[in-house]
Amino acid sequence: MYPKAVNNLITALSRLPGIGSKTAERLALFLVRAPAAEVQALARAVAGVGAVKACGVCFNLTESDPCPICADPNRDAQSICVVETPADLAALEAAGSYRGRYHVLSGALSPLDGVGPEALRLRELVRRVKQGGVREVIIATNPTVEGEATADLVARSLAGCGAVVTRLGYGMPVGGDLKYMDGLTLSRSLESRRKLS
Amino acid sequence: MYPKAVNNLITALSRLPGIGSKTAERLALFLVRAPAAEVQALARAVAGVGAVKACGVCFNLTESDPCPICADPNRDAQSICVVETPADLAALEAAGSYRGRYHVLSGALSPLDGVGPEALRLRELVRRVKQGGVREVIIATNPTVEGEATADLVARSLAGCGAVVTRLGYGMPVGGDLKYMDGLTLSRSLESRRKLS
Repeated sequence: MYPKAVNNLITALSRLPGIGSKTAERLALFLVRAPAAEVQALARAVAGVGAVKACGVCFNLTESDPCPICADPNRDAQSICVVETPADLAALEAAGSYRGRYHVLSGALSPLDGVGPEALRLRELVRRVKQGGVREVIIATNPTVEGEATADLVARSLAGCGAVVTRLGYGMPVGGDLKYMDGLTLSRSLESRRKLS
Repeated sequence: MYPKAVNNLITALSRLPGIGSKTAERLALFLVRAPAAEVQALARAVAGVGAVKACGVCFNLTESDPCPICADPNRDAQSICVVETPADLAALEAAGSYRGRYHVLSGALSPLDGVGPEALRLRELVRRVKQGGVREVIIATNPTVEGEATADLVARSLAGCGAVVTRLGYGMPVGGDLKYMDGLTLSRSLESRRKLS
């Protein structure tokens, strides 16, 4: 029904996650009518991600190896924050309060999806910590079943490595509403209550 | 927070309609991890829509001019179906019951968006019909306020052109549910009721 070039684009776009055939059709028809410069910019940007690879040290996404964070002498090399994905790392960087280094596991344990310990960059983390010079490992996996199981595995793998292993704190999210909060979160925030005066 | 190539892609993707910055981020991170062949296929597909233009006769999207439908001798040249967009044309073609030609207006009247009669391919339609050989013009603009106003304008513009001008029928959509149908649709389907026996 559409010219071949449009059908090709619809097919390619509908392979993206969360983009169904109707959305792909809408996007393709938008691009057909968009200025040529904008379309070419998108094509170049898509092709350009071929230059992105994983940092050899922390497995964050990078164009240079080691990545800018690992290469930054102003960041605390004694502290490693362990995250599941580059997106989690980006969220922590956006928060702006952490000035140490990272380690991207590239996933979380998920037996149902066939993701076992060998699929994670865990051996590389243990090697980094065993090399010495690391004071603290902060486990910042997600507060989900998979993330908790992964945190547990990471903590056990690092036992006896000579570094303090910590976990991000649980509690109320800032801006949340108590009456809509689940019981487990409330229990955790009771446990982690702090003295004010 | 991400490498430049990833940020470029996020920016380019978030220019697409209905793609916010979070979705663009998710898509970009998917593409970073996708096989290189798939990423290159998408880049080529995006760049490829540059070859798509409007048919000189009916203004449908095409890579050849005139488009395959206008060039097809098996399609009834005496019948022209007037639609708003190439997507509407594609929906009618997918239905498969129409064997005539088309005319894509490239929009509908929408004074609030600054779309007046001169923005539509109306003059070209009148010229096509005045050239003769057209028996019927079927107005298939959308059953919306804009589509109805456009249908009215098209009908008035074609008055005295020598062709029968018709409008797509109103009524219940097949598979619909009477209790969820709006009153106007129900009134229209009462008006267009047909004798069964």
